[in-house]
Amino acid sequence: MKKFVNDPKQFVPEMLEGIALANPDTIVYVPEYNLIMRSDAPSNDKVSIVQGSGSGHEPAHVMVVGPGMLDAACPGDVFAAPPADYVYETAKRVASDKGVLLLVNNYTGDRMAFDMAAELADADGIKVKTLFINDDVAVQDSTWTVGRRGVAGNFFVIKGVGAKSEQGADIDEVYRVGEKINSVTRTMGIALTACTPPAKGTPLFELGEDEMEVGVGIHGEPGRRRAKLVSADEIVDELLGAIVPDLPFVSGDRVALMVNGLGGTPISELYLLYGIAAKKLQAQGIEIARSYVGEYCTSLEMAGASITLVKLDDEIEELLAAPASIVNRIF
Amino acid sequence: MKKFVNDPKQFVPEMLEGIALANPDTIVYVPEYNLIMRSDAPSNDKVSIVQGSGSGHEPAHVMVVGPGMLDAACPGDVFAAPPADYVYETAKRVASDKGVLLLVNNYTGDRMAFDMAAELADADGIKVKTLFINDDVAVQDSTWTVGRRGVAGNFFVIKGVGAKSEQGADIDEVYRVGEKINSVTRTMGIALTACTPPAKGTPLFELGEDEMEVGVGIHGEPGRRRAKLVSADEIVDELLGAIVPDLPFVSGDRVALMVNGLGGTPISELYLLYGIAAKKLQAQGIEIARSYVGEYCTSLEMAGASITLVKLDDEIEELLAAPASIVNRIF
Repeated sequence: MKKFVNDPKQFVPEMLEGIALANPDTIVYVPEYNLIMRSDAPSNDKVSIVQGSGSGHEPAHVMVVGPGMLDAACPGDVFAAPPADYVYETAKRVASDKGVLLLVNNYTGDRMAFDMAAELADADGIKVKTLFINDDVAVQDSTWTVGRRGVAGNFFVIKGVGAKSEQGADIDEVYRVGEKINSVTRTMGIALTACTPPAKGTPLFELGEDEMEVGVGIHGEPGRRRAKLVSADEIVDELLGAIVPDLPFVSGDRVALMVNGLGGTPISELYLLYGIAAKKLQAQGIEIARSYVGEYCTSLEMAGASITLVKLDDEIEELLAAPASIVNRIF
Repeated sequence: MKKFVNDPKQFVPEMLEGIALANPDTIVYVPEYNLIMRSDAPSNDKVSIVQGSGSGHEPAHVMVVGPGMLDAACPGDVFAAPPADYVYETAKRVASDKGVLLLVNNYTGDRMAFDMAAELADADGIKVKTLFINDDVAVQDSTWTVGRRGVAGNFFVIKGVGAKSEQGADIDEVYRVGEKINSVTRTMGIALTACTPPAKGTPLFELGEDEMEVGVGIHGEPGRRRAKLVSADEIVDELLGAIVPDLPFVSGDRVALMVNGLGGTPISELYLLYGIAAKKLQAQGIEIARSYVGEYCTSLEMAGASITLVKLDDEIEELLAAPASIVNRIF
């Protein structure tokens, strides 16, 4: 295992401490609950937005806490749902008069933890709603899910509900835009290598030197098929060939296009994929109004990428364009 | 070789085309010269800032073109200096009444190309100055340099001269702040894996399963020593142990701290390193006023990281805090 790590069991707390130390003015870190929250949360003028999930997907979700994005995140250990009491405690700490919206990528373990936490919070009189995200078109059910998985398209839901909540909308309205964005968002990914959870110390699966996993999950779950590695052109054809007909996206649509890195792929390759995808979509008459290239939802150091399309209307486009900032600033 | 690539010889042009397609309103791309420039450059109100270097270090430098940063970048092929005529053509296209500042990381090939281009531009009557960056403390001379190498600390020089040029300062003043920032910036890196240039198809060097290269260069050049992989704590001790005494940084100093990923290391590990480094510096009485965690200067998909410290004064801190934006936006 080639990682920067001390005690593998302390990987997540040491990462969270790093985030806290890099953002002393804007972030509060509560180690007992793996909780990273905006230091100015909660505000009774807005719905608070929370997401959990396992660790290992950074920047999702602990590094996208900030104005216009999440109010708090409470990850579990690497690739493990947060315990229900982490989520419950987080909901209590960010509870505002306008309520708390819990975002959950669709995995069975996460659903259980968040459903239980929502019940507990509700019993305390906290206004709470839970929104499930399931943008991955690769497989219908999978190793850890009933129904489709939630992956990098999650970013657009966070951005949309974050922006809507900053406008002071009530929880039903914030939920509505989140659900709407999820309903027009489609993703599929591909892995060139496996990844190694620190506490496991060995790769989650094996891929031959000339193999790729088409439709891989963000925890290394199997996708649609194992195949021989092919050219970037052919890979983009396969990903768009699954994504575009699924909604479907059609000529005349305006979209956001994201090329997301899975952790070990350099941004040079992501822009190469973006260029190929953009030209293929334009050739189909699909207009790219917003572009996103980088790491949004990763699988530790996995080499790979995913493509996400979001069908835009004026409301979604405006929410995606709203100002926001996150703990993981570049400047 | 596990990469997203079509024809390996077209890796750089296809990446550049992706950047251009993702930024149609803000970027002009001139394929003949690998040239990415601000669509609103040149402005006679400011000195134009240009950097070249080899490709494979993204986001440096083609992805940090934008207001407050570079006006243009003209990379060579992967790990190869740009030809002098690329640099000369770029200087001509962004030449303003206030002149052109060429930034060069200290490698012999880059120096030759930029010196020749500067001579040609000067002969055309363009006001031009060249600033060399050499922040890497690992080795005094190296495979491709006489003197120290320029690595991730380059970001701070770009940010400083970019901000100063936006204020309308003349070229001597912009050069002065760049030189000043370079003089107080120190970096050292460590590699856990090698990397593979697309057109080569095999790794640049071999590292055993339990080995690391201490003080690695950003083209895989040897550093100070090959060693057994140790804990993150011990790695940070070694890096800071080389960086801190070099300037030296001393108790009472205010600094910017950067943990830079070399391409294949996930951001979770970078924040873990950041937390360790921050605590060790604070224990020495060094105050961290600005934090930078992410990828700034990479070596393709190399797993590894570097640490950079910049000694701040009021002038440098203000320049680093100035607004800027780049083609590689996250939102």
